[in-house]
Amino acid sequence: MGDDAAAWRPSRSHLSVISTDALVENVHFRLGEATLEEIGYRACAANVSDIAAMGARPVLATVAIGLPQRIEPDDVLEIYRGIDRLARSVKIEIAGGDIVRSAELFISLTVVGEVSPTSLKRRSGARVNDVAAVTGPLGASRAALESKAHHLPPPRVAEGMWLARSRSVHAMMDISDGLSTDLARMAVASNCGAIVDQIPVAETARKFAISRGEDAQRFAAAGGEDFELLAAIAPRAFNYLSGRFRKRFGRPLLRVGVFREEAGIERVGGGEPLPAGWDHLRCPGS
Amino acid sequence: MGDDAAAWRPSRSHLSVISTDALVENVHFRLGEATLEEIGYRACAANVSDIAAMGARPVLATVAIGLPQRIEPDDVLEIYRGIDRLARSVKIEIAGGDIVRSAELFISLTVVGEVSPTSLKRRSGARVNDVAAVTGPLGASRAALESKAHHLPPPRVAEGMWLARSRSVHAMMDISDGLSTDLARMAVASNCGAIVDQIPVAETARKFAISRGEDAQRFAAAGGEDFELLAAIAPRAFNYLSGRFRKRFGRPLLRVGVFREEAGIERVGGGEPLPAGWDHLRCPGS
Repeated sequence: MGDDAAAWRPSRSHLSVISTDALVENVHFRLGEATLEEIGYRACAANVSDIAAMGARPVLATVAIGLPQRIEPDDVLEIYRGIDRLARSVKIEIAGGDIVRSAELFISLTVVGEVSPTSLKRRSGARVNDVAAVTGPLGASRAALESKAHHLPPPRVAEGMWLARSRSVHAMMDISDGLSTDLARMAVASNCGAIVDQIPVAETARKFAISRGEDAQRFAAAGGEDFELLAAIAPRAFNYLSGRFRKRFGRPLLRVGVFREEAGIERVGGGEPLPAGWDHLRCPGS
Repeated sequence: MGDDAAAWRPSRSHLSVISTDALVENVHFRLGEATLEEIGYRACAANVSDIAAMGARPVLATVAIGLPQRIEPDDVLEIYRGIDRLARSVKIEIAGGDIVRSAELFISLTVVGEVSPTSLKRRSGARVNDVAAVTGPLGASRAALESKAHHLPPPRVAEGMWLARSRSVHAMMDISDGLSTDLARMAVASNCGAIVDQIPVAETARKFAISRGEDAQRFAAAGGEDFELLAAIAPRAFNYLSGRFRKRFGRPLLRVGVFREEAGIERVGGGEPLPAGWDHLRCPGS
């Protein structure tokens, strides 16, 4: 502590992985709609989720915070409390960072992890006929955000490491910007398309969507920050892997569709295209 | 590219080091006073300098940029051009990152490096009677900033790695916030104080200070972003090391003073205390 940089020794025979994300006030969150602790938690969770999506074990994080003068220095401890809460839950060290003055609150986090070279998963490995599956139902974060409920979604670190050990898992990424956006990204990166047959919806998201008269699956497909993982799995291995996953984690892998040669994402039966998910350069309300 | 995180393999028998810094518009720079390319360059240089200060070799960087809508997407390429210019000069890879909307421009950079465990230098290792020395004259960045000149100070990567190999170098850090601030930080971290006998002033800084009727040494001591390294060197080894440094880098190590038991930083002869350097939480003009 106090040095210009933090030092650690990655274990031998492992690759290091690194991820950086920034959350900005009035773009990714609004003060008053979330506590500072929640904001810190989510900033850290987003990066840890990126590491989990590679099949890696997160090791440490650095934090840069832009702090407006209207936020009391003591309140910044609330942000660190949230970061620390997530860090403890996934056993990573906070290795320092930077606090600077800024007109708007922002949190930029970097997380480093490690993975054996044979386990590393990329989003570009999906193959035609692979099952597209997710590690849990979607939409809970969006429902919580829009109903102003408190919600601290866990990044799927153990699930990612578990899936990464299987050779039948050809590609992996996390669903941080909504299934519709992220499935399209995986398909493009893998030079293929996908057809969606069902979207597993979290119970809170289903209730919230129905209360607003919206289609629950479409609501869930456009929800960001769920942190569930999306995997492309060899079709012959899917049922077996899902069963073992259920034994290990108490819930099955959930099929959302299948990859196919034809580019683009369609719904089975030619239903309405899915709504676009989150785009980091699109400012909400602008 | 496109994956949630970037992967690399640190060489065996090395420690990894990591540094994160953020630069914010109207705090660390003002648009119009520096080009976007300069701003990108300096953001990257600040982190590379932190890595150099540990004696480590920088390996890769991630970048998070907060981009106001008033900045054209094309202009963000100027920022990347500056980051890339520094990255090429020290042979590091840009391994991805994040671009988000923001009311003010900010750049948060993380750089990872590696160092052999026996070479790693910390700021806390200075010993009583060690010579405090710097790798070059100071104040050029401040003079450039205040005279609105263009200036791209190089981080001292080769110098840091060279010094780190010597056991006579007991502590090291970079001068990012002014010698007066950073020497005090090294002394506090090392549980000692220091007495300053001379402050080497860059020629451009001397001319600029004189043109404003200011004391050149005091001007240079409070200048930030010089990226010269400050080292605590065993007194018996100093002359020999400085001579070898001159052979290698074409200029000597410059003595600024000596560490002593008594806490605090004083000037030889009891002159006026040095002005404080940069404080990241103090907003200029506020």
